[in-house]
Amino acid sequence: MSLIVFAPVGASLALIFAAFYTYTIFKVDEGTDRMKYIAESIRKGANAFLKRQYKGVGIFFIIMFIILFILAQFNFVSIFMPFAFLTGGIFSGLSGYLGMKIATNSNSRTANACTKSLNSGLRVAFSSGTVMGLVVVGLALTDLSIWYFILNWYYGAMPIDERITIITTTMVTFSMGASSMALFARVGGGIFTKAADVGADLVGKVEIGIPEDDPRNPAVIADNVGDNVGDVAGMGADLYESYVGSILSSCALAVAAGLSVNGAAIPIIIASIGVMASIVGSFFVKSKEDVSQKALLSALRRGTYFSAIVIAIASYFVVNNILGRENIGVYFSILCGLVAGLLIGFFTEYYTSDNYKPTQSIAQSSETGPATVIITGLSVGMKSTAAPVIIIGCSILISFVASDGFNNFNMGLFGIAISSVGMLSTLGITLATDAYGPVADNAGGIAEMAGLPSEVRERTDALDSLGNTTAATGKGFAIGSAALTALAFIAAYKNSIEQMATTNNIAFNFDLSILNPQVLIGAFIGAMVTFAFSSCTMSAVGRAASKIVVEVRRQFKEIKGLMDGKAEPDYASCVDICTKSSQKELLVIALIAIISPLVVGIILGPNGVAGLLAGATISGFVLAVMMSNSGGAWDNAKKHIEAGNFGGKGSECHKSAVVGDTVGDPFKDTSGPAINILIKLMSIVSIVFGMVILTFHIF
Amino acid sequence: MSLIVFAPVGASLALIFAAFYTYTIFKVDEGTDRMKYIAESIRKGANAFLKRQYKGVGIFFIIMFIILFILAQFNFVSIFMPFAFLTGGIFSGLSGYLGMKIATNSNSRTANACTKSLNSGLRVAFSSGTVMGLVVVGLALTDLSIWYFILNWYYGAMPIDERITIITTTMVTFSMGASSMALFARVGGGIFTKAADVGADLVGKVEIGIPEDDPRNPAVIADNVGDNVGDVAGMGADLYESYVGSILSSCALAVAAGLSVNGAAIPIIIASIGVMASIVGSFFVKSKEDVSQKALLSALRRGTYFSAIVIAIASYFVVNNILGRENIGVYFSILCGLVAGLLIGFFTEYYTSDNYKPTQSIAQSSETGPATVIITGLSVGMKSTAAPVIIIGCSILISFVASDGFNNFNMGLFGIAISSVGMLSTLGITLATDAYGPVADNAGGIAEMAGLPSEVRERTDALDSLGNTTAATGKGFAIGSAALTALAFIAAYKNSIEQMATTNNIAFNFDLSILNPQVLIGAFIGAMVTFAFSSCTMSAVGRAASKIVVEVRRQFKEIKGLMDGKAEPDYASCVDICTKSSQKELLVIALIAIISPLVVGIILGPNGVAGLLAGATISGFVLAVMMSNSGGAWDNAKKHIEAGNFGGKGSECHKSAVVGDTVGDPFKDTSGPAINILIKLMSIVSIVFGMVILTFHIF
Repeated sequence: MSLIVFAPVGASLALIFAAFYTYTIFKVDEGTDRMKYIAESIRKGANAFLKRQYKGVGIFFIIMFIILFILAQFNFVSIFMPFAFLTGGIFSGLSGYLGMKIATNSNSRTANACTKSLNSGLRVAFSSGTVMGLVVVGLALTDLSIWYFILNWYYGAMPIDERITIITTTMVTFSMGASSMALFARVGGGIFTKAADVGADLVGKVEIGIPEDDPRNPAVIADNVGDNVGDVAGMGADLYESYVGSILSSCALAVAAGLSVNGAAIPIIIASIGVMASIVGSFFVKSKEDVSQKALLSALRRGTYFSAIVIAIASYFVVNNILGRENIGVYFSILCGLVAGLLIGFFTEYYTSDNYKPTQSIAQSSETGPATVIITGLSVGMKSTAAPVIIIGCSILISFVASDGFNNFNMGLFGIAISSVGMLSTLGITLATDAYGPVADNAGGIAEMAGLPSEVRERTDALDSLGNTTAATGKGFAIGSAALTALAFIAAYKNSIEQMATTNNIAFNFDLSILNPQVLIGAFIGAMVTFAFSSCTMSAVGRAASKIVVEVRRQFKEIKGLMDGKAEPDYASCVDICTKSSQKELLVIALIAIISPLVVGIILGPNGVAGLLAGATISGFVLAVMMSNSGGAWDNAKKHIEAGNFGGKGSECHKSAVVGDTVGDPFKDTSGPAINILIKLMSIVSIVFGMVILTFHIF
Repeated sequence: MSLIVFAPVGASLALIFAAFYTYTIFKVDEGTDRMKYIAESIRKGANAFLKRQYKGVGIFFIIMFIILFILAQFNFVSIFMPFAFLTGGIFSGLSGYLGMKIATNSNSRTANACTKSLNSGLRVAFSSGTVMGLVVVGLALTDLSIWYFILNWYYGAMPIDERITIITTTMVTFSMGASSMALFARVGGGIFTKAADVGADLVGKVEIGIPEDDPRNPAVIADNVGDNVGDVAGMGADLYESYVGSILSSCALAVAAGLSVNGAAIPIIIASIGVMASIVGSFFVKSKEDVSQKALLSALRRGTYFSAIVIAIASYFVVNNILGRENIGVYFSILCGLVAGLLIGFFTEYYTSDNYKPTQSIAQSSETGPATVIITGLSVGMKSTAAPVIIIGCSILISFVASDGFNNFNMGLFGIAISSVGMLSTLGITLATDAYGPVADNAGGIAEMAGLPSEVRERTDALDSLGNTTAATGKGFAIGSAALTALAFIAAYKNSIEQMATTNNIAFNFDLSILNPQVLIGAFIGAMVTFAFSSCTMSAVGRAASKIVVEVRRQFKEIKGLMDGKAEPDYASCVDICTKSSQKELLVIALIAIISPLVVGIILGPNGVAGLLAGATISGFVLAVMMSNSGGAWDNAKKHIEAGNFGGKGSECHKSAVVGDTVGDPFKDTSGPAINILIKLMSIVSIVFGMVILTFHIF
């Protein structure tokens, strides 16, 4: 009996418990009519966004399907590729959709539960996050299982070793659909959410001087919708892709390293154990009526720690039983990734929480105006790249050495890849902790808009504030795992090109030396692409936000009685503007990711592509960490001032800090996280179009 | 007769004409007593800064000399190294010193000449720049000549081929002194100038509302001093180092490629031709009484174009005569660098001049406040990295292919290196165009402070405004040449380590594949170091600027009658604060550049170091371009508004634009340009300490 059976078992368990948690959430009442109305508005907005997005994405997927289908006719890609592309996209989209569905149904319920106790609120919000986490890992393992069984049946006549080789190398290309979907979800959602947020803040807070989440602000619903489409659906699709990608590339590299069928199943087994550990861990998250951040954070972390420990113990026996005592080093590679994921989270918290010096220094710099807030924030973000780089560096080195890479290079590469699986094995619960944030944020907004009593708002504020911290650590985790996944993809890329060359009798040998101009130029371009890409996403937010500014100003001018609270603003128009502009900008951005490997490949050949991927991964990782952390730190520096430091709300310092926060919005929620997907998508595009590049390259 | 004789000839010509231009400048009168007084204050401040800086640098040089001397006793470095280190530092420091001396003596003379005509002013300012340019190239060639003749005499007993090998490989390490000096000058000057500028603006323009260069502002002299110490002395030392480095590494790579003694002299001959072309070109710079930017820019460019064309024609005959028709490809490599330098200048102008859309879009975004100014500016800077990367990429590819690199790898590397010599061959005149800017800027300040008539100020404003454009293009040129020089260093690094291994019977083979974890981790760290380094330089500016803010506020509060112009501010105290704080921050920053290759080398070995250098060069290039261009664009967006657009001076838009400009100051004048030196210094440290790393590395 093949060990691959772990995948459907893990998948089923994840989906069953997701259903169970959904059931518990829907048992909670939605609260007052006003709350229901607001929640319904948010749901409507979110659905409208997704509907339009899926339409746009649909066209893109049809075109790509046709291209892949034609390429398949000429044997440039596997015949399964176009179909796998579709399923990847559909499953990735589905995880985003379900996650958002549950989040938009949990926000008012969280607010309402907070009228009872802090723990009730926490449980609802966290359950919503858990559903998201489990849906993502469940659907990922489902997709993997289905395709494995189809391919295993199709190639059934082959001897087992050969069959596994062809299955894994075929399946590794399957992430492309998920990657593309993730790009649309993350970037589209990111532009939406930050356009709404920046637009709402610029007019509401800065010009008119009404508080955040004030129901008179026409962009306030769009802002709440944005939290869901960007931070829930986008983040889910992103991590779905990392998860699938890291498992598949590890399987492929296991085969390349000459491991047995059971060895190739290790990534899947570890992932399945992670699912179970996450499910059990999720039950540990409970809190007392203590609204301090420390108490709440430790309540949330209990679940993650428990899961991590379970995985750390179980993986030992998995590796020991399958690979034997002599390959126990692989276990340390897994452990390495697991620990690295947690460590990156810690350091991200250090740099972005106002309990520590870096963020406090930004708050302090507000005394000399907005310019110094920006300078200090950028400086903190840049400095914060050191720790993650060193952690990832150590993780790569240790997992390579532990898997005996200096003697057996392919085993070493497998070690690096499996460490990314180790990092992502806690995804079920890590994503739960992360996706909890937007729900709490929305709950706070609803409590404010529905005028709930102050002790309820205090509870939702405590939950929301915690959500900021978990969102920042979640982003660190997403970036770290994306970097490791991208590296595994580069290794898989090399193997798959070599195999293509052998199969098709094309004479080609890699020369991946950094002194090879093809590699060097590719790397330069890769680094540049991450900057150009960030530029596009940021300016897209800027353009969309300025449209919102115009619209909000118009409504305040034209709708009589809006300022006095006597008339309702037109929420839908802001949602509509955000939706339209985010979709409009997406196509060019998506094309960068897809066309750059092709163009570089055609001109500089497969070596150039490898350089491109390495350059993009290295520079992208550093840039993404910097942007996410600067953004998080600015956000919390502003909150630090709002908590009564440096003059508090409304002071000159606060105004300067708001400028920092506004700059940070696209940094942390659009451009930074989008880079993760960019580097993964570029890698997978390179693998999928490898044969085209191999055939047609100039140099 | 050896062709190396071109070097002392070029050097002498450069120095003679530098003396000639100095003579013409000193013939011009310094103007009114008030002007003399202001100019004297600036000179005093600049001298005070340099004096203190050279004291700090002196200690650093003594320590490094001792370390190198000890290492030389154990044969870890050449016995000449410690002495060469000193001469490099002294010559580099001397070019900065002389350039600054002449600049601080030309500012009031330029202002005074502007009372006569625009052309007189232009001639004085440009002559000052030309002295700087010629001193830099003259001293560089002098240093090279002296050491060549010493080494040639010392190794005189060896056969010529062997002798040239040992001379070139020894000399390539000589840039370390120049590099270190450049770091101190560029970073120290950069911190000084921007602390003064930011501090002066924050209180003067934003808080109190007095115009730029207002004599009541206590930081105004420090600001003017800063232009000289940062943009003249710093830029000069930076380019001195690129110039020496590119010539030496090309010579070494010529020998590695198996070229003859005459072949190895080609870089020196091209450089010497460049000196002569620059001298002649400098006489072409003249203007009519037309203050439009277009007319002035074309006046300045005439000189550069003339020199470039002369070099393009002459190099053909040099290559053809020395290497013969079959190696004429090398000529195209030179041409490639020459053209790339000009092209980068064009694109830099496009992104940073307010004649074009990018900068205009920043100005427009000021309508929605400072946050959108920052977002748009960063976005423009990030997008602006595309063109230089593609230009450098094409330049690398073409110069490699033209020199037949795909068949003869070492010739290809020589091609890349010689293209950097081609780019830098116009340095004499390019630097003149660049160093002209701060003089014109100072002249404008003096005209303002001395209350010269408005038509004079109009002329100095026209010259100053042009200086902004040439400063931006100069920075692009400095970054482009630094990237190519750094690449040449990496290639030289590999050769020199291999030679060390052979000579000392150490078994070592490079594996520079990007999939080698040593290389990969090194590259990650390299990219991170550029960010961490920028963070340090930016926060140093922030800290120093806030001290200035406190001091300026204090003076306005404590000195009675200052605001009414009845009392004099205490200029010297601001100069003193800037000097002290810039020196205090320098040591840590310098240590990053020196220690990171050592630490990475000890842990990850020579492969890791190569990865580090590649990662730092690639990521640093992109980051430096982004920071310089964002900064330049913010500056000119502000100027665009001041010219009467979007409400003009004093409007809300203007205030927002000032925030952008303030953020841009450390970007474009401290962090961005400092990265150039960082990447070159790291490379040269790696070469110098190559033997230490080779002996003691862990992995």
